[in-house]
Amino acid sequence: MIPKRPPYVPPPSEFGIAEIAGLRAAGVAAGIKPSGAPDVALLVADGPVDVAGVFATNAFSAAPVLVSREHLVKTGGRAAAVVINAGNANACTGARGLEDARLMAATTAKLVGCAPEEVLVCSTGVIGLELPRDKVVAGIERAFAELEAGSAASRAFGAAIRTTDAFAKNASFAAPEGEGGFRVAGACKGAGMIEPNMATMLAFVATDMAFSSKDLGSIVRAAADRSFNVLHVDTHASTNDTFLVLATGKRQANVALDRAERAISDVARRLAWLIARDGEGATKVTTIRVGGAPSAGAAREIARRIAASALCRTALFGNDPNWGRFVSAAGNSPHVSHPARLTCAVQGVVVFEEGEPTAFDKKALAEAMKQDDVTVAVDLGDGDARAEVLTSDLGYEYIEINAEYTT
Amino acid sequence: MIPKRPPYVPPPSEFGIAEIAGLRAAGVAAGIKPSGAPDVALLVADGPVDVAGVFATNAFSAAPVLVSREHLVKTGGRAAAVVINAGNANACTGARGLEDARLMAATTAKLVGCAPEEVLVCSTGVIGLELPRDKVVAGIERAFAELEAGSAASRAFGAAIRTTDAFAKNASFAAPEGEGGFRVAGACKGAGMIEPNMATMLAFVATDMAFSSKDLGSIVRAAADRSFNVLHVDTHASTNDTFLVLATGKRQANVALDRAERAISDVARRLAWLIARDGEGATKVTTIRVGGAPSAGAAREIARRIAASALCRTALFGNDPNWGRFVSAAGNSPHVSHPARLTCAVQGVVVFEEGEPTAFDKKALAEAMKQDDVTVAVDLGDGDARAEVLTSDLGYEYIEINAEYTT
Repeated sequence: MIPKRPPYVPPPSEFGIAEIAGLRAAGVAAGIKPSGAPDVALLVADGPVDVAGVFATNAFSAAPVLVSREHLVKTGGRAAAVVINAGNANACTGARGLEDARLMAATTAKLVGCAPEEVLVCSTGVIGLELPRDKVVAGIERAFAELEAGSAASRAFGAAIRTTDAFAKNASFAAPEGEGGFRVAGACKGAGMIEPNMATMLAFVATDMAFSSKDLGSIVRAAADRSFNVLHVDTHASTNDTFLVLATGKRQANVALDRAERAISDVARRLAWLIARDGEGATKVTTIRVGGAPSAGAAREIARRIAASALCRTALFGNDPNWGRFVSAAGNSPHVSHPARLTCAVQGVVVFEEGEPTAFDKKALAEAMKQDDVTVAVDLGDGDARAEVLTSDLGYEYIEINAEYTT
Repeated sequence: MIPKRPPYVPPPSEFGIAEIAGLRAAGVAAGIKPSGAPDVALLVADGPVDVAGVFATNAFSAAPVLVSREHLVKTGGRAAAVVINAGNANACTGARGLEDARLMAATTAKLVGCAPEEVLVCSTGVIGLELPRDKVVAGIERAFAELEAGSAASRAFGAAIRTTDAFAKNASFAAPEGEGGFRVAGACKGAGMIEPNMATMLAFVATDMAFSSKDLGSIVRAAADRSFNVLHVDTHASTNDTFLVLATGKRQANVALDRAERAISDVARRLAWLIARDGEGATKVTTIRVGGAPSAGAAREIARRIAASALCRTALFGNDPNWGRFVSAAGNSPHVSHPARLTCAVQGVVVFEEGEPTAFDKKALAEAMKQDDVTVAVDLGDGDARAEVLTSDLGYEYIEINAEYTT
């Protein structure tokens, strides 16, 4: 039996989302979660700020996703507040669900003093249950009363967006004064239903920089592509995924757009890493890199096949450099045209070279796999394109959490 | 904690593969498996008989697959013997692997008194290890000495092809005398790496009927499509999959081709069901039926998404009628164009109707899911096409077996 590892505790981020100039946050327990844990969060700006987002693509996208999308279209990408509840996804809830999502926005707007469409709404939790409307409204009112800037508020916000998350997920970046001194901070939740094109994942990144609405739109898409969209945990994308980037514009800094985009992508990437690390029952994050491919699409398809293979993911859990599983998972792809050129390395150790296994030290490599970060690299020897996927390993606790989490 | 269920024991099949007129079988322990369990099997016909097969499509198809394919082409679909080893897949073993597979054929041919190309070769087990050549040759010689017809030989054969299988897998069908009195019997192995387009799965079906080589080829493809190709267990197809149908022609019966095909497909389907039932750690077989689809391809794609979702499979393990997972797994497909028309039923109970959850008795349905056979049916309300996939649920023992099975 593989021993349980001690729970992972991420190092704290330097500062939180409520420490971005112009933002206040709060998180309270409103009684939506049966456990009594915090479940209503608010993020409020001093006034309407620029926001861009990417959302779930599931045919059953939840009511809050539909409402937030609609609001962003109406305002042309401006919002004064984001209201979030955990414990109930408000998904597959029909007309009543839409009413409830609008009520969350309206309640928040009245308190904040903005238009309802200047409020974005997110929900996460169990699918298909009606929201306990009165509890949610009372929770929003209490959260509004507790709004503040600073690290305590960031922590309260982060706690109230969690569902099965084992730890709060935060990331931050502060540019040196010489590079504009801007700041980026983010918080997210997500541990299951993690798939490319988003997941049951809510992520909020804020910066004190200012952008044109067009630039902010391209930043959020680029950041998503470099972070949440390379996550591949349980082959199940969700109904509620939302990734928002808010720019308060409080810092007048002349920062090159690509530098700003990189900073925001890096924070998003760290958040995505934390989601993979917290994959239900996961003990590590595995980066699957496929290179030497005839196209980026081919590379991505192969990387996803490896990440989707329960056999590969259990081998990663077992610290087993079982190249046979990685190589045969790749070999299932129609894009492997020259198996005799394929090379595979685990943690930098070549375990399979140009179509044949190598002699490597299995014990040493198994030991080297007992890390928070493991890399499986596959080179097809068939081009220059490459792609990357982040995945969690598949361990006992995944079953425990998911077989016994109630409908 | 979900309690372990007692191990599944399939009811015995009426008769075994060595009870088909014209065939003898044997199985011996040759020392390939470290456990000392039986690991070399032989199936020998009175003389060359008609054979058709379908094989792994993996780019890393194993040496025995390459050799068997080549032999069937050379003989135009005739074979006098099938030799199988378990415990070592002889896959990713390069030139040496091909030599070893040819040696297995040559050794068998010499004993049987046929041409080497009239022997088909199968291997299953760990990938990437060289075959212990001397042990395999000695095992084949001993198996040849023990060849016999009858039920004891069928059991010995079935035991020697197992790897992680928890039980032997057999199926049979005898037509009434009025319908030609023909017989079909089969044996297979497979519990992991189960995916459409075959898996680490070896299946052998034999009949005493006679067919033209063309008819036998279409029968084996139809039977595969109705059985092994609808299996979807761990999103990982294998290097060694082989499904062979042997027709000894000992029974002169005038049987309509579609009747014969159905009998062979039914035996193959039963074998496939047993493989799904024996999915590592599985507690049941789930049939995922998608109907009302715009095309068969769309229906299949959606059924596979549900079967590939670790969240759906853990819900099945937990007897949890968690329609939110089934519906959102379907909703990930680009083929769900009208979510408001989608209906989902579990064990015949409608849990989601035209886009919204229904009020159903969760406890009663959870109880009804504690069966060896569970059905999840999705109707898209968007056409007439349908498809079906068989899958296993995902339980604790899957992790135990796969994380701790050595490279």
